[in-house]
Amino acid sequence: MLLFCGMPEKLFSYQQLLNFTAKIFQKIGCSEKDATVAATALLSADLRGIDSHGVARLTGYIRLWEAKRAIAKPEIRILHETPSTAVVDGDAGLGLVVAPFAMHVAIEKARQVGTGWVSVQNSNHFGIAAYHALKAVKEDMIGIAMTNASALVAPTFSVERLLGTNPICVAIPAGSEPPFVADLATTTAANGKLEMLQRKNQKAPEGWIQDKYGKSSTNPHELKAGGALLPLGGDYEHGSHKGYALGAIVDIFSAVLSGANYGPWVPPFPAFIPMPTNMPGKGIGHFFGAMRIDAFRPAQEFKQHMDRWIQCFRSARPVEGQEQVLIPGDPEREMETERLQRGIPLLHAVVEDLEWLGEKFELHL
Amino acid sequence: MLLFCGMPEKLFSYQQLLNFTAKIFQKIGCSEKDATVAATALLSADLRGIDSHGVARLTGYIRLWEAKRAIAKPEIRILHETPSTAVVDGDAGLGLVVAPFAMHVAIEKARQVGTGWVSVQNSNHFGIAAYHALKAVKEDMIGIAMTNASALVAPTFSVERLLGTNPICVAIPAGSEPPFVADLATTTAANGKLEMLQRKNQKAPEGWIQDKYGKSSTNPHELKAGGALLPLGGDYEHGSHKGYALGAIVDIFSAVLSGANYGPWVPPFPAFIPMPTNMPGKGIGHFFGAMRIDAFRPAQEFKQHMDRWIQCFRSARPVEGQEQVLIPGDPEREMETERLQRGIPLLHAVVEDLEWLGEKFELHL
Repeated sequence: MLLFCGMPEKLFSYQQLLNFTAKIFQKIGCSEKDATVAATALLSADLRGIDSHGVARLTGYIRLWEAKRAIAKPEIRILHETPSTAVVDGDAGLGLVVAPFAMHVAIEKARQVGTGWVSVQNSNHFGIAAYHALKAVKEDMIGIAMTNASALVAPTFSVERLLGTNPICVAIPAGSEPPFVADLATTTAANGKLEMLQRKNQKAPEGWIQDKYGKSSTNPHELKAGGALLPLGGDYEHGSHKGYALGAIVDIFSAVLSGANYGPWVPPFPAFIPMPTNMPGKGIGHFFGAMRIDAFRPAQEFKQHMDRWIQCFRSARPVEGQEQVLIPGDPEREMETERLQRGIPLLHAVVEDLEWLGEKFELHL
Repeated sequence: MLLFCGMPEKLFSYQQLLNFTAKIFQKIGCSEKDATVAATALLSADLRGIDSHGVARLTGYIRLWEAKRAIAKPEIRILHETPSTAVVDGDAGLGLVVAPFAMHVAIEKARQVGTGWVSVQNSNHFGIAAYHALKAVKEDMIGIAMTNASALVAPTFSVERLLGTNPICVAIPAGSEPPFVADLATTTAANGKLEMLQRKNQKAPEGWIQDKYGKSSTNPHELKAGGALLPLGGDYEHGSHKGYALGAIVDIFSAVLSGANYGPWVPPFPAFIPMPTNMPGKGIGHFFGAMRIDAFRPAQEFKQHMDRWIQCFRSARPVEGQEQVLIPGDPEREMETERLQRGIPLLHAVVEDLEWLGEKFELHL
C-alpha cells in the first residue's frame, strides 16, 4: 500500500492489468485481437502516468457498451479516400479499436505517397493521443493524433461550454535520443488535474476555470455548477483566444471534416448523461496524420539534427530551482520505465471499480 | 493626422503603399512579378492590422538585402519531393517570394493526391502566416502555414532564449460565413504588443516575459536586457510547457525537416545583429500544408457544417461586458474592410523610414 495525496493506493503489474482488461473486453464480445488492441491502448495511459485516461476508465467503456452507445463488433470501414487521405467510419466501435485502425491507414498512405491523413467519424473515447501518434514513430514517420470530446471548455468571452479538452499529440523520431512527444490538452489544465483538486478540496490557480457567469474562479467544484474549463492562456490578456483557436482546429479537423459531432453536440463519455439533441453528425471524431521523414530528407540526417536539437534544449541553463529544461515526452517516458519495473499504482476507488467488473464478468483481477 | 496611443499617425491608401513597396522591391533587383508578389504579401499585414509585420518592416528587408543576407533574384527550387511532399530551397530569396512559391507547390500536390506538405529551407521572414494559408482557402482547401524565427522565447524552466515566436496559421473555408482563420504566435503575447508597451513605458501583464535570471517580470524592457518572451501559458502552472511544445513543433517542421536553422541558430531579422556561429542549416525555415476539402467529404457539405459551427459559436451567450464570442479571423477581416475603405494609418516613425527609402531609391511615397 502506498500513500499518495492522502488516497490509499495498491500496486499492480502492467501484465496483470493488461490481461484483466483484455479479458473484460472479450467478455463484452470483442474479438481476441480487438480486445488486446484496446487493452494495450488503454493501459498505455497508466504506464505513461496519465491515470485519468487508463484503467480508471474501464468501467466507463463498459457502461457505454451497456447503454448501446459503443458496440463490441464494429464494421470499421473507409467511407472515402484519395492517395493521401481517408475518412473512416468507426461504426460506434470502441475508440480504442477504431483509432489504431485509422492510424494504420494513415501510415500505409504515408508509405505510398509521403503522408497520410485520416479523419474519423462515429467513434468514441480513444484513450491517450500519444499512444496512436507513437505508432508512426516506429516507422520513421512523424505521428499526429487529435480528438474532440464533449464540451467542458468555454471559448474566450463565452459563458457556454462549446469545446472539449481537445488534445493534440505530435510525436517525432530522433536518433540516439528518445522521441519528442508533445501530447497536450488545449486547455490551461487537464480535467484530471481539476478532479485531483476536487478530491483534496483545494483551490485551483487563477486561469483554469470560470463560474457559470463566465467569471474567473478558483473553486474546483464550479465545473459541476455550470462553470467551465478555460482554453490554454486562461484569459484574453494571456492569449486564451489562442487556446480556443487550437481547440477549435481540433474540433473541425476531427469532426467537421469527417461527419462526426462537433462543438456542444459531441456525445458525453459518461453513459448516464443524456445525449445532446439535434446532433449534426455521428459519434465523436478523431484526426490522424503520418509524415514519412524520408519524404522530406534522409531519415538518418533528420535524426542526427533532432539529436542536436534535443541536446541543445536539454542542456540549456535552467532557472534556479529547476534541474533541467525538459523535452516534451521526458516525464511520461520516465514514468513508463518506472511503472513497467515497479508496477502501476491504482487508487482504492479504481481497484473497487475493477473488482466490481471482475465479479460482474466472473474474472479475477 | 490621427492620434493613436500618443503617436502621431498618417493615413495612406492601400494602393499607394502597395505601388511604393513593389517599386522599392524592383529597385533592389526583383522582377516585376516577384516585386508585386512580395509587396502584396507584405501589405496584407497592414490591411489585417498586424502593423508590426507590414510596411514597417520594409526597411528591414532592404537592409537584409544590403547585407547580402537576402537576394533579389533567387533560384527557388524543389530539392526533393514525393506525391504529397516537397522540400524547397529558397536560395536566400525574400521570404515574401519564397513562401508563395512553396504554398503553390503544396496546393498543386493537394490537387493531385488530396494533400500537399512543403518544408522550406534557406528563406527569411515571410510576413504574416495568414496570407499564405488563405491562398488554399480560395481553392476549397484548408491552408496551413508556419515559420520559425530568431530566438526570443525561453522554453519552460529555461533561462536561455531558444525559440522564436513561431506562429501557426490554419485557415478553413466556410460557406455563407467568412473563413475561419487562426493565426497565432506560440507565445503569450506577440512581440509587437511588447514593443507598444515599451514605447508607452507601461508595465506588461504577468506571464508575458521573464528577466535574465528566468524570473517573471512586468518590465517590457527586460527583453533588451537578456530577458525573454514566455511561451503561451506563461508559467508551468498555466501550461507554458504546452506553448513551448507548440513552438518546438513549428521549429522542427520548418527547419529540422527542411535543413534550415533551428533553435538558437535561426538568423535574426535585423541585419545589424551578427549571425549565429556554428549554424546547422541554411536560412530560416517555413512549413506549409494544403488539404483539399473534397479529399475528405463533398466541399458543399463541409461548408454547410462549417457555417453551422461558426453560427453556433458566434451566437453563444457572451460574458458580461463582451458583445459576442468571436470566430478566429473576425477582427482581422473587419480591419481589412475598414482599411481598404479608409486607408492604412502609419506611425510617424514608419513614414520617416519609408521617406528615407524613397529618397535612397529616388521614388515618391
